[in-house]
Amino acid sequence: MGEFELLAKLRERLPEAGPRIALGSGDDAAVTVPGGATATSVDAIVEGIHFRRGEADLATIGRKALATALSDLAAMGAEAGEAYVVLGAPSDLDEDGFHALLDGMLDLARATGTAIAGGDLTRAPVLTLAVTVVGHAPAPSDFVTRGGAAPGDLLVLTGVIGGAAAGRLLLDDPSLAPAVPEGAAARLRARQLDPSPRLRSGRALAQAGATAMIDLSDGLVGDAAHLARASGVGLEIEAGSLPLAKGVAEVAAAGGRDPLRLAVAGGEDYELLAALPADALGEASLRIGEAAETALTPIGRVKAGAGVEIRLPGGGRLEAAGYDHFGP
Amino acid sequence: MGEFELLAKLRERLPEAGPRIALGSGDDAAVTVPGGATATSVDAIVEGIHFRRGEADLATIGRKALATALSDLAAMGAEAGEAYVVLGAPSDLDEDGFHALLDGMLDLARATGTAIAGGDLTRAPVLTLAVTVVGHAPAPSDFVTRGGAAPGDLLVLTGVIGGAAAGRLLLDDPSLAPAVPEGAAARLRARQLDPSPRLRSGRALAQAGATAMIDLSDGLVGDAAHLARASGVGLEIEAGSLPLAKGVAEVAAAGGRDPLRLAVAGGEDYELLAALPADALGEASLRIGEAAETALTPIGRVKAGAGVEIRLPGGGRLEAAGYDHFGP
Repeated sequence: MGEFELLAKLRERLPEAGPRIALGSGDDAAVTVPGGATATSVDAIVEGIHFRRGEADLATIGRKALATALSDLAAMGAEAGEAYVVLGAPSDLDEDGFHALLDGMLDLARATGTAIAGGDLTRAPVLTLAVTVVGHAPAPSDFVTRGGAAPGDLLVLTGVIGGAAAGRLLLDDPSLAPAVPEGAAARLRARQLDPSPRLRSGRALAQAGATAMIDLSDGLVGDAAHLARASGVGLEIEAGSLPLAKGVAEVAAAGGRDPLRLAVAGGEDYELLAALPADALGEASLRIGEAAETALTPIGRVKAGAGVEIRLPGGGRLEAAGYDHFGP
Repeated sequence: MGEFELLAKLRERLPEAGPRIALGSGDDAAVTVPGGATATSVDAIVEGIHFRRGEADLATIGRKALATALSDLAAMGAEAGEAYVVLGAPSDLDEDGFHALLDGMLDLARATGTAIAGGDLTRAPVLTLAVTVVGHAPAPSDFVTRGGAAPGDLLVLTGVIGGAAAGRLLLDDPSLAPAVPEGAAARLRARQLDPSPRLRSGRALAQAGATAMIDLSDGLVGDAAHLARASGVGLEIEAGSLPLAKGVAEVAAAGGRDPLRLAVAGGEDYELLAALPADALGEASLRIGEAAETALTPIGRVKAGAGVEIRLPGGGRLEAAGYDHFGP
């Protein structure tokens, strides 16, 4: 099958039009009528760097490519709109493989209201997926940047952390699996391989008045530092408040690692870290409850100054050496 | 130097804001206020497939990545707006290399009024550049798709063709170089390595009433077939009217190839093929003259039916076997 035939077959599976799409895939460009402000982000995953074939099926890999891109829109409080996909395909990817990748992307696209509006197909030495996503809001000021946190704000976190890093440990060293029941191990591996973008939570936090927001791709400490720098503030995080994913403590212990360090330095949880005026916490919790996607946990405070400090329950601080990034 | 430091250095070189950019690179997403309709296209170039390091310097490679993406916007008659760049970097790309790639992109971005508004940096086994471009127009109907050509329309072409294919022959086989003066050989190689998106010409043709348009990436015959299929028409092209780039005939002859076949099947010229009501040719020629980018040549007609026919001066037709795609 030639490139054009394959493209035509893949295109047939894309939706004809979305709410803002005047012309979908198949012409020189897709045409949309955004009507308001757009947030645009690009994200790429590369075989051997961000994933390994064999660890996950192709549908899951396709889903992760779209999920990590959409996570950036979640962190803006955006409504997901369109996605454009560059697929670099190695020579051993057969027609079924293309369809499986698209299966995964369409699966998540449907669940999040995203329209795959265009793409490009090329040969590449390893499987490479670069995804551009466009999100929407009525006006630019409706988006939540990393830069608006103010001293006195609370720091809140969606969901649980450390799961993706523990999942990576389990994938790298299967001998650690007996440390947790198989159901828990499977959930940890899924946190690594099949993350969920927190789009509904991001919009709930934006509507509740979040002043700054970022998604956790590099790890809590690294991403908190990005937010602190962009806002020109310091952040205090209470280690005792951090919601660790179930099984993280056991897997970390079995692997000879400190669970707290794994959780704060481990990337790819794709939860949202937000700053919020203290009086907005009730509203934010209610809206997060309504979004029914994750729980919301207050984990610290915004203060004047700079940097990120992780305070231990005993009164000390986590040393900087614990902050080493863990992940790709 | 770490990834974040390098990213910060590269970001410093991007413009703070463009006419529609509310927030540029550095947050989870770039924020724009499109105000009208957008045309979005993605295009990737991969080392070893679309280019070879060594044939061109990194600035030229960066420029080509943006140029091939912008060419799709030219084919819509769009005004160039924003670009988002995924850079997959092999381990031997040093800091100077990143800056050189960006030099080339910024060079073309300035010349075309494009703002590089965001990007992603990742490791990759070979140099990979995936570029998403967003173009603008007041309304969706201002864009020219591939699908509006009607029987009776003229078929017009910007610039000259065959140059990129002849340049590829010269790059692959330096022994052909004596077939043309070195200045001409250099220009042919540049057609292959450093194409120019015909943005001003595309807008001129759109404003003159073009009914359908496509850019020549796959080659005249292949791209004409896309336009014919999308419009539900047939196309007749007069081979005697085709404007071949200077030196194509000589290089083709030296390489044992038919110049006409090379020109119609050779890809990557990135000229524009458009259908136009016959009475709009004068207006289109004047506007193309004003755009001062390329010349406009009538090369055939749109008729009822299907397919693409290339009529030879003697009265015959070019056989289908001559249409084989030449290029990546």
